[in-house]
Amino acid sequence: MPSHVSSLALALSVALASVSALAADEKPKVPSMQEILDASPKTDWRKLDPDRTLYMRLPAGRVIIELAPDFAPEHVANIRTLAKEGYWDGLFVIRSQDNYVAQWGDAEEDAAKQRKKGTAKAKLPAEFERKATGAPFVRLPDSDGWAPEVGFSNGFPAARDPKSDTAWLAHCYGMVGAGRDVDADSSDGTSLYAVTGQSPRMLDRNITLVGRVVQGIELLSVLPRGTGPLGFYEDPKQYVPITSVKLASQLPEAERTQLELLRTDSKTFTTVAESRRNRKDEWYKRPAGHIDLCNVPLPVRPAK
Amino acid sequence: MPSHVSSLALALSVALASVSALAADEKPKVPSMQEILDASPKTDWRKLDPDRTLYMRLPAGRVIIELAPDFAPEHVANIRTLAKEGYWDGLFVIRSQDNYVAQWGDAEEDAAKQRKKGTAKAKLPAEFERKATGAPFVRLPDSDGWAPEVGFSNGFPAARDPKSDTAWLAHCYGMVGAGRDVDADSSDGTSLYAVTGQSPRMLDRNITLVGRVVQGIELLSVLPRGTGPLGFYEDPKQYVPITSVKLASQLPEAERTQLELLRTDSKTFTTVAESRRNRKDEWYKRPAGHIDLCNVPLPVRPAK
Repeated sequence: MPSHVSSLALALSVALASVSALAADEKPKVPSMQEILDASPKTDWRKLDPDRTLYMRLPAGRVIIELAPDFAPEHVANIRTLAKEGYWDGLFVIRSQDNYVAQWGDAEEDAAKQRKKGTAKAKLPAEFERKATGAPFVRLPDSDGWAPEVGFSNGFPAARDPKSDTAWLAHCYGMVGAGRDVDADSSDGTSLYAVTGQSPRMLDRNITLVGRVVQGIELLSVLPRGTGPLGFYEDPKQYVPITSVKLASQLPEAERTQLELLRTDSKTFTTVAESRRNRKDEWYKRPAGHIDLCNVPLPVRPAK
Repeated sequence: MPSHVSSLALALSVALASVSALAADEKPKVPSMQEILDASPKTDWRKLDPDRTLYMRLPAGRVIIELAPDFAPEHVANIRTLAKEGYWDGLFVIRSQDNYVAQWGDAEEDAAKQRKKGTAKAKLPAEFERKATGAPFVRLPDSDGWAPEVGFSNGFPAARDPKSDTAWLAHCYGMVGAGRDVDADSSDGTSLYAVTGQSPRMLDRNITLVGRVVQGIELLSVLPRGTGPLGFYEDPKQYVPITSVKLASQLPEAERTQLELLRTDSKTFTTVAESRRNRKDEWYKRPAGHIDLCNVPLPVRPAK
């Protein structure tokens, strides 16, 4: 047989001999992500703070949002007030645009008929970015076209510009933001959206992000697409009813969903990111050597 | 008043005087994407080639896929054969994984009961990449973390490495690929998937991409998520039935969907990409100055 084939066959037989010398359970094996997570220390996980956790109840189930008061303190404070006063109870998901967002709030255009906002503030400052100094930030070493640096801040995908000492949240899948009009400071937290498609990073630093869906994003991502412009539902009969939006802290402990999230400042998280950056399992023929911010998984599991 | 304020006030009053001298309808205005497209010459658009167009009929409507024989000639040839022989007719969408893919084909594991593949080839080479020389490629100047160069090749998002003279298709939203097992050459085109979430660019050059959904992706992206591992439907009752998959050329002209796609080698396309790279409309406060390959829109419209 041609020489290159016979030397390949020789190399293969040597390799096989080495492998067969190992016991069956000692074969070198690339750990799956589940194995990495299962082997992680309990301290690499954190529970949600019930006062930073929003539950939105839809007919199909509970959407759980972790709020980001370290980046949007005014918006989050207003959202807490609105939730406690039942603002969204009986309102609707009014928009579902393919490969973009789902959005919920009050579709009523007649000011006289709009939901009253109780003691929530009518006006909030734009909270598009914050001072980087003082913001926890674990850098993702991979390049990013939208920002000088990207990484994670206490579980939220984020970006940073050391030159201007600014940091901001990034519009990855599942991130939740506050809809606004043309004026930068025209969001009040009553109109919220979640990213359900390709990360619209052009929205970063153009709109206030307030949190991230940590469980139940599929309840939003499967919603029928609206036929109106920008995916708004044209017929009110298409609106998806919101039973309630409440902070987890408003519910007795027994009614809360017990979740834990992998800490983004943990060693396990770094291992997870690297395991995704360079896939070494048999199926992959070419490890990418790169990962985008919005491709890094943010593991969550039922709390034990 | 301080000198810098008075000179600013002077500059502003001069600017305002210039603006008020214009008639109301001559105010400078940023064209919307629709306006850019409406103003484009007809020659910047192309019709689909019916022999490169696949129609998948689901209960909710028609999914239209443009095939990419310039990148995956063997797989596309096999897909044409399978379509002509009605391979997928009566099969199912068997998987819908949130923020990832929908997948369709034959879920039957018992080889004796599997669909026969007619005259389609049982074995195909892996078609993960091709020679860049000879492949049409309009470069997108923006940086990309996954590849040395990115751009578009006759309407398909693609990447290129000049050093190795290779080019390949990229896993943007709506791209369609051929499922395979561990062996690189184990796809035969019978098991297809479409990207319905954040672009899984780590799959580039690891699996054969065969085309792109140009219309009807929402029919796949809204499908209920499978509860099995990787989003496979656990109960066959959940499978979404496929009435038929046919090439457009199998249908009489009157039954085809008349579409035109913006040519990615057109001036209008460059204008569209720039209009998205730097959003100048009032709502945006900070144009990004960057766009990712998978954020560039690929406009399609009914053919006139």
